[in-house]
Amino acid sequence: MDKTAFWNELAAQFSVDSIRATTAAGSGHPTSSMSASHLAAVLFSDHFRYDVNDPKSPGNDRFVLSKGHASPLLYSIFKAIGVISDEELLTLRKFGSPLEGHPAPLESMPWVDVATGSLGQGLPMALGMAIGQRLAGSPGRVWVLIGDSETAEGSVWEAMQAASYHGLSNLIAILDMNRLGQRGHTMLEWEGATYADRARSFGWHVIEIDGHDVTQIDEAYREAEAANGPAFIVARTLKGKGVALVENKDGWHGKALDAEQAKQAIAELGGERSLSVSLPAPEYKAPSNGSKPVQLPVYTDGIATRKAFGETLAALSARSDVVVLDGEVGNSTYTEDFDKVSPERFVQLFIAEQNMIGAAIGLRVLGHTPFAATFGAFLTRAFDFVRMGAVGRTSIALCGSHAGISIGEDGPSQMALEDLAMMRAVHGSTVLYPSDGNSTAHLVSQMADLEGISYIRTTREKTNALYGADEKFPIGGSKVLQSSAGDKVTLVGAGITVFESIKAAQLLQAQGIPARVIDAYSVKPIDAATLRQAMSDTGLLVVVEDHWIDGGLGDAVLAALADGGASLGGRVIKQAVTQMPGSGKPEELRDWAGISAAKIAETVTAALR
Amino acid sequence: MDKTAFWNELAAQFSVDSIRATTAAGSGHPTSSMSASHLAAVLFSDHFRYDVNDPKSPGNDRFVLSKGHASPLLYSIFKAIGVISDEELLTLRKFGSPLEGHPAPLESMPWVDVATGSLGQGLPMALGMAIGQRLAGSPGRVWVLIGDSETAEGSVWEAMQAASYHGLSNLIAILDMNRLGQRGHTMLEWEGATYADRARSFGWHVIEIDGHDVTQIDEAYREAEAANGPAFIVARTLKGKGVALVENKDGWHGKALDAEQAKQAIAELGGERSLSVSLPAPEYKAPSNGSKPVQLPVYTDGIATRKAFGETLAALSARSDVVVLDGEVGNSTYTEDFDKVSPERFVQLFIAEQNMIGAAIGLRVLGHTPFAATFGAFLTRAFDFVRMGAVGRTSIALCGSHAGISIGEDGPSQMALEDLAMMRAVHGSTVLYPSDGNSTAHLVSQMADLEGISYIRTTREKTNALYGADEKFPIGGSKVLQSSAGDKVTLVGAGITVFESIKAAQLLQAQGIPARVIDAYSVKPIDAATLRQAMSDTGLLVVVEDHWIDGGLGDAVLAALADGGASLGGRVIKQAVTQMPGSGKPEELRDWAGISAAKIAETVTAALR
Repeated sequence: MDKTAFWNELAAQFSVDSIRATTAAGSGHPTSSMSASHLAAVLFSDHFRYDVNDPKSPGNDRFVLSKGHASPLLYSIFKAIGVISDEELLTLRKFGSPLEGHPAPLESMPWVDVATGSLGQGLPMALGMAIGQRLAGSPGRVWVLIGDSETAEGSVWEAMQAASYHGLSNLIAILDMNRLGQRGHTMLEWEGATYADRARSFGWHVIEIDGHDVTQIDEAYREAEAANGPAFIVARTLKGKGVALVENKDGWHGKALDAEQAKQAIAELGGERSLSVSLPAPEYKAPSNGSKPVQLPVYTDGIATRKAFGETLAALSARSDVVVLDGEVGNSTYTEDFDKVSPERFVQLFIAEQNMIGAAIGLRVLGHTPFAATFGAFLTRAFDFVRMGAVGRTSIALCGSHAGISIGEDGPSQMALEDLAMMRAVHGSTVLYPSDGNSTAHLVSQMADLEGISYIRTTREKTNALYGADEKFPIGGSKVLQSSAGDKVTLVGAGITVFESIKAAQLLQAQGIPARVIDAYSVKPIDAATLRQAMSDTGLLVVVEDHWIDGGLGDAVLAALADGGASLGGRVIKQAVTQMPGSGKPEELRDWAGISAAKIAETVTAALR
Repeated sequence: MDKTAFWNELAAQFSVDSIRATTAAGSGHPTSSMSASHLAAVLFSDHFRYDVNDPKSPGNDRFVLSKGHASPLLYSIFKAIGVISDEELLTLRKFGSPLEGHPAPLESMPWVDVATGSLGQGLPMALGMAIGQRLAGSPGRVWVLIGDSETAEGSVWEAMQAASYHGLSNLIAILDMNRLGQRGHTMLEWEGATYADRARSFGWHVIEIDGHDVTQIDEAYREAEAANGPAFIVARTLKGKGVALVENKDGWHGKALDAEQAKQAIAELGGERSLSVSLPAPEYKAPSNGSKPVQLPVYTDGIATRKAFGETLAALSARSDVVVLDGEVGNSTYTEDFDKVSPERFVQLFIAEQNMIGAAIGLRVLGHTPFAATFGAFLTRAFDFVRMGAVGRTSIALCGSHAGISIGEDGPSQMALEDLAMMRAVHGSTVLYPSDGNSTAHLVSQMADLEGISYIRTTREKTNALYGADEKFPIGGSKVLQSSAGDKVTLVGAGITVFESIKAAQLLQAQGIPARVIDAYSVKPIDAATLRQAMSDTGLLVVVEDHWIDGGLGDAVLAALADGGASLGGRVIKQAVTQMPGSGKPEELRDWAGISAAKIAETVTAALR
């Protein structure tokens, strides 16, 4: 069979298998798969370099199915490259099958690198992979298949601008322009020239083709491979290509064919086939590990935890796996301290938080250890990417600076007040909130090796030194800062409110009320045992946080104490922000919100009256 | 004084006042204000139509300061148009002053329409205002000043595409291309032609000018006003224009001048001035209110709550203030039912959730009542916009469909599992989660009149009818579905888990364990009194939810019971999703997660053993 014939046959096989799998499942997206069958057939027959026995090798090409609903196509490819069987293909969408409705990188599905299915995320992740390949000295390329509907997501354009800015010649995007979205036509339908203009204006090399003409596709891939900079292929396609019942027809998004329709469709496509493709493995030798021992910074004086975060990152730069991503606020989060010592592993992505998180996930795929930081308030921008990172079992470290009303004069738009709630709700996450320099250094250092998504919340203001450099800060731990047998109340704080709690304890001591003080630096997992002991000893916990009252430290404490149907064992009072703040000095705002030392002491005396 | 001289003098006044205000505050962004002084001077002298005595009039032009950190410029404008005094100007950033670090639409600051300060949000909000003006028959225009750094946010391009798609000739964006961001140069520095290409490719009429040449500015505004479609003005500017110490200098972002520096700078700018501008009020007559009485749908049979949501919206279309926004999933959320009856008030924004929420906030400014809907999972995409909506005291209604693992085969990327946590953490929010058709209809209907941001969570599957059409569903209420004097446990559910709880109660009854069942349809505010009574009566609450275990209904119940230091009064067991789901049938997944009737019953029997 000559190449052209083979490509067309393989494309037909992909379409047939996509129909078979979705009909067996009774749901799914056959037509969205079929529009890209030719694009995939040529790619995997003649362009993709991949070691199927070592799917995680940094030397491999990467394929990102950004339009994750076309998973039947992906699994049909996996069958053709010999990593899953036909029987497995037909388990699509069934309970317990790794062939989920949208692709996820399960242990039993190692050929998937990232979870997709929330649209517009594939290109940011692919961007991170392309940067990661460059850092790893990989000969590989990243191929990303994007749907036309998803180009409406701004995150796509965030990645587009960053790819040309960073000159990523190893990044190739293929636009499957099939004109039809979920509920009707897309915004631009078949205006290929408009897509082309947009991509070109964002600095990409652009090629326009008929996405069902395998010769044009092959030539486009060759041109893209040779391009100086990222390449964008606008492929005009037909949704449901090759089956008259569904081809270019509205109303067929996300619908499986019934058995009879499938039978006819498969016949129309020339029947079942069992072609296979042997992928050529790339030649790749990993660079020698240049890591040196890490010397954590040591603090004897006060420092802002955001600054300690930056200095610890700079120390971690001794590890060659660590990369740091910035959203043009590195002089506020202090990631600039890393940039100063390891600029080659500092990735500037400008003000585009979604793309920053997507790129971090992509960098992780290549084996790097990414830290991404911005204001905690602006991390909310990337919640969907963080969520999808968890679905994709990624391990990345995030930092949100400028926590709470304590930032002061800049006002509520810049105050992180919902970040703890957001990050606690991320599956498998770790949420940390240090109060001083040495605790920050120890926690940041541990984040580099944590599984899952970890988050550290830092404070704008300078805070006093509380701990010595040799103190240990295990994840899930806490610190009892002061304690006596006769304690009548426990003040539980984290970050800035630890200091307010210490001062409140002094005020209370003067009134003859001994108070225990706990630094709950690990918000998730939280140190339930220490909290329970404190409750047992004192009968009253006042939890003080610079965060909205819903979903933060207070709720975490309640959930920990009540876990498994336990009694709280006493009273819990949450002191947190309950009204919309304005501008003002940090101490003015803390007092206004009821989380200053004076207000904490008042709360305690009222509660003990 | 001739016009040109006046414009230049007014620009100098704006720069001087920006310096005075920030120096008085000791912080703030004078240089980011100064780059746009000429742009603002010409706009407010000769183009802006506004009734200062009726700032909320739909007939007014609107000015959106998307680069919210340039608030000193905005307040300097407010002084020149006579709505604040010079004394007030100098309260910038002080505790209690309405002149916050970033603009917010406080009651005492009615000339601000939306909160800005999280970058890239002004244009989506302006887009909503422009659509809102069109719907209101307003002669007004929306002028939005954007910074160059913030064009890196994808949300800007989401709004760009939507503005040309909707043909908004009343929308004019002014790009203050001052080349310098927070930490150094912007991605494109002074590449005006690249910005112009991008804006043009996104369908805008583009004009490139020197942003300090008042004649060019005036001509550009005239051209923009006459353009057929949205207009984008690329204005090349100097950050800190006019003061040698800071002009076009790195390291001066977000820094106030000290007193001596300010004195010299003001001298360099020609000293203080007290020019004023009298804005011409527009001619506008509101269209007659075409609202008709609303007939809510009535359900006697089962229906999916997402479908009941859509049908209720269709019924609410009788109110002429109601508008509905879609992110190209209207056939899943069923907002398409509104489109069918009121297409003129149905706004299609394609797959761009950030822009959808921004546009909703903008529509609200014009007096409309926006409902915006997408999958609950994808609403996480817009968290920062929702957050800023709360900072901006907006009132909008949101719907997240496809709640939880109960969506089944599509897998975790499409499952809303953190939406309750996210929406509970929004200041002033209302969070609703109905179980059947009639409760949905009543709650959706109330959302149209709620203050703040309200959220309703809907279910993909059809559920049985539980309530009659005359039942009332007050916000903050709940329903006790079954109850007896001897109840040994209370099952608390919401949405889909109400039905699992009812079935579990039947299983428990068969084992001789009478169970109370509560439908907690109002998650925030929650019906603490009914929960407390149930705990007092039964001593055990099992809270069952199709959501991650952190931050959802279970935590809301705990917080309500423990409020003010109260004892829980008994045991609370949370049954929720704790492991990452895959694909499968809804009932398979619920059983796997422990939230099926059988698993609930097992939990109860184990707890009572």
